[in-house]
Amino acid sequence: MDDRELLNVVMGIVGRENCLDDCAVFPCGEQVMVATTDMLHRTTDFVPGMTDWQAGWMSAAVTLSDIASMGAVPKYLLIAVGLDDWKSLAGVMQGAKDCCTRYGAEIIGGDIDRHGELTVVTTGLGLVDRQNLVRRTGARPGDLVCITGTPGQAQAWLDGYHQYKKALFEPQPRVEEGQILGKAGASAMMDDSDGIALSLYDLMSVNGCGFTLDSSRLPLPTGIPAAQARELALYGGGDYELIFTIPPRKFPVAGVPSTEIGMVVPEISVTVDGQPLQKRGYQHTWE
Amino acid sequence: MDDRELLNVVMGIVGRENCLDDCAVFPCGEQVMVATTDMLHRTTDFVPGMTDWQAGWMSAAVTLSDIASMGAVPKYLLIAVGLDDWKSLAGVMQGAKDCCTRYGAEIIGGDIDRHGELTVVTTGLGLVDRQNLVRRTGARPGDLVCITGTPGQAQAWLDGYHQYKKALFEPQPRVEEGQILGKAGASAMMDDSDGIALSLYDLMSVNGCGFTLDSSRLPLPTGIPAAQARELALYGGGDYELIFTIPPRKFPVAGVPSTEIGMVVPEISVTVDGQPLQKRGYQHTWE
Repeated sequence: MDDRELLNVVMGIVGRENCLDDCAVFPCGEQVMVATTDMLHRTTDFVPGMTDWQAGWMSAAVTLSDIASMGAVPKYLLIAVGLDDWKSLAGVMQGAKDCCTRYGAEIIGGDIDRHGELTVVTTGLGLVDRQNLVRRTGARPGDLVCITGTPGQAQAWLDGYHQYKKALFEPQPRVEEGQILGKAGASAMMDDSDGIALSLYDLMSVNGCGFTLDSSRLPLPTGIPAAQARELALYGGGDYELIFTIPPRKFPVAGVPSTEIGMVVPEISVTVDGQPLQKRGYQHTWE
Repeated sequence: MDDRELLNVVMGIVGRENCLDDCAVFPCGEQVMVATTDMLHRTTDFVPGMTDWQAGWMSAAVTLSDIASMGAVPKYLLIAVGLDDWKSLAGVMQGAKDCCTRYGAEIIGGDIDRHGELTVVTTGLGLVDRQNLVRRTGARPGDLVCITGTPGQAQAWLDGYHQYKKALFEPQPRVEEGQILGKAGASAMMDDSDGIALSLYDLMSVNGCGFTLDSSRLPLPTGIPAAQARELALYGGGDYELIFTIPPRKFPVAGVPSTEIGMVVPEISVTVDGQPLQKRGYQHTWE
């Protein structure tokens, strides 16, 4: 049982329409508000060696990334902290606050709980003009598939390339880039936190179309043998780049360093260099 | 170290103004939105014998209670579920959904995580006209101190009075009552989830005034010796009644069964029958 199978259980109870995007969307005055929540904890998410400050930074960053992927402006963060050691609290809160400050958001509330291990749940709220909102749905055959930055760096650290520590320990969500892409007309978008491959399968499941990738176009982390770097870029988790589709006439987008890596196609499949892309990446699993 | 001491750590980082109420408040169109987050988990919060459905119901209820205590209308809930056993998910989600449906809210998003013990974090969002918003601040000497319903019932179950199981296992937040009290002019309000005593000390810490209680006025759970019932009502946790202050001319409030139990006074102290009220109740603590 993995978390994408469990999502089907949730869809049966709360409705499929509430499970399709990185954020929920509802009206707020003349704009729309986006809302998202993420649970991280020591065993699964906080890498050994990570400081409390970095755990707090990462907790805020993953939520701000979800807001970025909708093209929205992050405004508010709530943070619930489960503590095994109360001395972790100040570091976690300072890290979360510094990340929010960097990206223009404010911590407005939270909860403190005693817990068996450090557990941080951040809920983010953002605002966007309705016409600039980008969802996971909206990809059309003929659109380009593009990605910001260089994917695979977080996984590279886990695989022993320690020059990539910051990518995993202090992820930088693409907040400004997401807003620019929303205004520029990206047709669909999400972050690639579970890897490019799973992200494209997620996009395929909600769009009536598929994707072809050209691996020679993938931006690859440097200092790593090419075959391994390609593997990291396609299947590695822990990155917070934005993967998006956009009509060719609107690309490239000024102010958003990004790379065209493939194309939206009518066929319901995901391929790389003409072969099926493996459906694997970062997932939680249960016995 | 207890959670009220840790709150001072948080205040030093995110600002005191973001820690004063049961919910954060920000503008949303012509109204204001309130937002709150709560972490519950098996070891600390879910009583042995509780079903997954009840754990989900309780998780939603505690958050809806925070929204009620601001006089707001609950609208949206996000729910992050950490699972040791994936088979708990459907029950937890159904319980949370049923509680939301009962009180007019909708689950719009969430997260699923593998965790060492069942952990549920609910974030609630509500709306209210600004003039009907009630905060913890606003109590004025001469106002009455009142409480909805009958406090002490949840703690009574924990102390062996098993006729009160539902109060603890399936709390009923005072959602309609909170909205009526906001419109009726309650001057300050919070829920009494950590007990009346701690709630009044919390209110004293943000208002420039204190409170006197008359224990003979306390509504007491029946079937329990009077002295013990009084103890439960003052210091027991796990209830979700609303404790509020209101000018005498505005009380009683039609549609809100509630009892006048004391008075707001200029002195910075909390007394019951002329003696200092003990500052104790439900708190998380750390070594």
